[in-house]
Amino acid sequence: MQTLAWTELPSIKVFNTLGRKLETFTPFKPGLVRMYVCGPTVYDYTHLGHARTYVAFDAIKRYFRLRGFNVIHVQNITDIDDKIINRARSEGKDWREIVDIYTKDYFEMLEKLKIKVDIHPRVTEHINEIIEFIQELIDKGYAYVAPSGSVYFEVDKYPDYGSLSGLKNPEEWRQEVEVLKEKKKPYDFALWKAWKPGEPYWEAPWGRGRPGWHIECSVMSSKYLGRQFEIHGGGQDLIFPHHENERAQSEALFGVKPWVKYWLHTGYLTVHGEKMSKSLGNIIPLREAVKKWGAETLRLWLLSAHYRTQLDYSEDALEQARANLRRLRMAVEDLRKIIGSVTPPAKLTDREVKVITTVEKTYMEFHNAMSNDFNTAKALAAIMELVRIVNRDIVPGEMYVAAVRAYRVFEDFNYVFGVLDDVLYGVVKLEHEKMVEDLVNLIVRVRGELRKRKLYDIADEIRAELRRLGIQLYDYPGGKTVWRLERT
Amino acid sequence: MQTLAWTELPSIKVFNTLGRKLETFTPFKPGLVRMYVCGPTVYDYTHLGHARTYVAFDAIKRYFRLRGFNVIHVQNITDIDDKIINRARSEGKDWREIVDIYTKDYFEMLEKLKIKVDIHPRVTEHINEIIEFIQELIDKGYAYVAPSGSVYFEVDKYPDYGSLSGLKNPEEWRQEVEVLKEKKKPYDFALWKAWKPGEPYWEAPWGRGRPGWHIECSVMSSKYLGRQFEIHGGGQDLIFPHHENERAQSEALFGVKPWVKYWLHTGYLTVHGEKMSKSLGNIIPLREAVKKWGAETLRLWLLSAHYRTQLDYSEDALEQARANLRRLRMAVEDLRKIIGSVTPPAKLTDREVKVITTVEKTYMEFHNAMSNDFNTAKALAAIMELVRIVNRDIVPGEMYVAAVRAYRVFEDFNYVFGVLDDVLYGVVKLEHEKMVEDLVNLIVRVRGELRKRKLYDIADEIRAELRRLGIQLYDYPGGKTVWRLERT
Repeated sequence: MQTLAWTELPSIKVFNTLGRKLETFTPFKPGLVRMYVCGPTVYDYTHLGHARTYVAFDAIKRYFRLRGFNVIHVQNITDIDDKIINRARSEGKDWREIVDIYTKDYFEMLEKLKIKVDIHPRVTEHINEIIEFIQELIDKGYAYVAPSGSVYFEVDKYPDYGSLSGLKNPEEWRQEVEVLKEKKKPYDFALWKAWKPGEPYWEAPWGRGRPGWHIECSVMSSKYLGRQFEIHGGGQDLIFPHHENERAQSEALFGVKPWVKYWLHTGYLTVHGEKMSKSLGNIIPLREAVKKWGAETLRLWLLSAHYRTQLDYSEDALEQARANLRRLRMAVEDLRKIIGSVTPPAKLTDREVKVITTVEKTYMEFHNAMSNDFNTAKALAAIMELVRIVNRDIVPGEMYVAAVRAYRVFEDFNYVFGVLDDVLYGVVKLEHEKMVEDLVNLIVRVRGELRKRKLYDIADEIRAELRRLGIQLYDYPGGKTVWRLERT
Repeated sequence: MQTLAWTELPSIKVFNTLGRKLETFTPFKPGLVRMYVCGPTVYDYTHLGHARTYVAFDAIKRYFRLRGFNVIHVQNITDIDDKIINRARSEGKDWREIVDIYTKDYFEMLEKLKIKVDIHPRVTEHINEIIEFIQELIDKGYAYVAPSGSVYFEVDKYPDYGSLSGLKNPEEWRQEVEVLKEKKKPYDFALWKAWKPGEPYWEAPWGRGRPGWHIECSVMSSKYLGRQFEIHGGGQDLIFPHHENERAQSEALFGVKPWVKYWLHTGYLTVHGEKMSKSLGNIIPLREAVKKWGAETLRLWLLSAHYRTQLDYSEDALEQARANLRRLRMAVEDLRKIIGSVTPPAKLTDREVKVITTVEKTYMEFHNAMSNDFNTAKALAAIMELVRIVNRDIVPGEMYVAAVRAYRVFEDFNYVFGVLDDVLYGVVKLEHEKMVEDLVNLIVRVRGELRKRKLYDIADEIRAELRRLGIQLYDYPGGKTVWRLERT
């Protein structure tokens, strides 16, 4: 007999934007992953680009959980910002109304995509903490108040500036050019923006105004995860200036290094090869995509590329994902039948041992891919190979062990990809229950019609058959019939 | 604000029967757990005592998987043995018939209890490997052929004999006394039993016969798990002589030490304070218990004590488990409603932070208990405390984060205990699927009858209604109708 060899799981490696290399994942405390992901600025509907980032980090979190880590996932909501104010102005609405509409959309979309975030902190609920943080930066000499009442972070005081983005030349750092004049250096960035008429504001020791963009993430991450944590994530467009600035102000104030151990960034999402943008009119709202393709197909497609690479939307790609999903489902259903219907054969044949060996190989390939910076593309390829093994090699009624092991691989796959809950766990979509109800109602209506036409033999037969299925009919005078499902 | 502190998960400790102390679990290869559990001798129905052991090791396996280990679980079936032969004789049946009846019962019971074993090797399918193993023991001088044709292991050749059971005095080793005369020492044990008329036999180089009891586990574990593996489990009545003998012959032949790294044994199950036994007539067949209490209540009760302690069956204890299950279910349903129906409140209040802190405490208590030699009793206590927190402290519409974290704890709990699949995942029991199928079949039959009677209006109405429900009918010549549920 060929020998069955069982293998250990690989340790997890992540590509750290800081340093731009693959590193073995070593958390500050064993078994604990604290992860902060930059969420939306709620001034418009969630689109496919957002979904890409959210699903990527959801899969990363799920994989850590699969590997036994305790994961805390914080994803913030930026609910005060120029874009929100501008949108409110252009629509003649209160900015809070804008925030409410798109926050609701965001939460609905997360639920559709089966993403559970632990904590969703919002900027406007943390103004006090932001003011305290800025005050401390001023007190320690890292920030200064400008004549306008705005407060800026003095980049020159933080020598490691530029390391995260790799932009080490100050010439490349120009940001917030519109307030150039009152800044000491063109690359200093705003911690607090002085109030302008018609804008929302909060009172601060240095005058009324509102927080700059970057400060919120430093404040809220430390509040909920502590002053050092394992993972900071977001879209790659956030590396500079957003994450560079977050890092500067946090390491300056906290005096810790590293503030964040691993920086992970998702690649761009394009549509038919082009960047999504308002001017091109090719922004795909997530709600429409979910309606068109379903959450599972979308998740499978979003995870069909490694999170750091560019991902292109096309009907073909989605059709491909849909076809893959169908194949995955069918394979799992076949396995359920094999496992559920037969007593395990007495003998493990050499033929089955060979099949088990190939099944275990896909299992290891899945974990190797996921452990190698969460390469969902390669992981999916391993699982599609498993589908082929199920279809081609696992003989029903003969190969029980191979089926059990293959099923286990699909369970792990689904734990991360989240696309097979229904076939694996028989999740009752409401349709299922409703289907039973609709079918019984239909039969009862047909039976009513038959009784009207005095076809009592068929009507009675129907009653008897339904009783056999655990459904009781109660006929009332006037032709009304009520039915009840006897619970077992 | 009170600070949220996230903690690492504890490392896993197991109580090793070998050495009788708690040890930090360190597998041979990181992340891999190979586990061999002694399964049934299939000569009678599975009873509650078996269920206790099977569910205990199922929970252990599930906990290892929750903590990210790759687990291979082998549980053997002893399908040739004195007890089987005697039962066949007393019932006037072929021994294979006895084996078939009780093997079927065993598999059905495992399925009911939601236990998935990877490999179920049977002794009679491994006779060749057993003969080879014995021959090697003879060749290496660890075993001898007696005049009868039986083969015995010479215990004196294995100096560490008695270490597992703690019985170091040869006076305590007397075993298989009925064949005392032909053994070199009274404590030598049979590897091969020479044939007696009327018994099943296989041909071996030293004559026809059948394997002794202990040899099978050494042979089959090494075949499927390798010559060293992490965990060997079984009921505590197996420590001596069964496991002691397994260990002697395996370490002697393989020349490895330790053959098995950790030995785990389950405590006894009593019924109303008394040992289960035929003479007392208090053996409770698992099938009856499952029918009476349901698999979930049974699992919860079986895991309500630490696996090494004695567990007593009583109606009160089971009623208690049933009540606990009800409370667990209600808590999870409440959480689902809280999480599903509200947008997370904008602010994490101090009150909620306090609640989150208590939720996290139960999470850590759960993991501390499970990590401390799989103490399911303490783990359950932590979860019942979580139920109280859900009922008493988590305010619907106000505390979203606390609800999400609590839900996550119930997920982990269920991953190990396996009693909340239905409320957590809305698992369709097969009845659901079958119900749809049965109902559609009934409607199709009724429609066939109506068409025969030329009542085409109702028949067509039925077809239209079914199509509306996503069910397509295909009528074939000769009156045959096939239906298909359109997948959405």
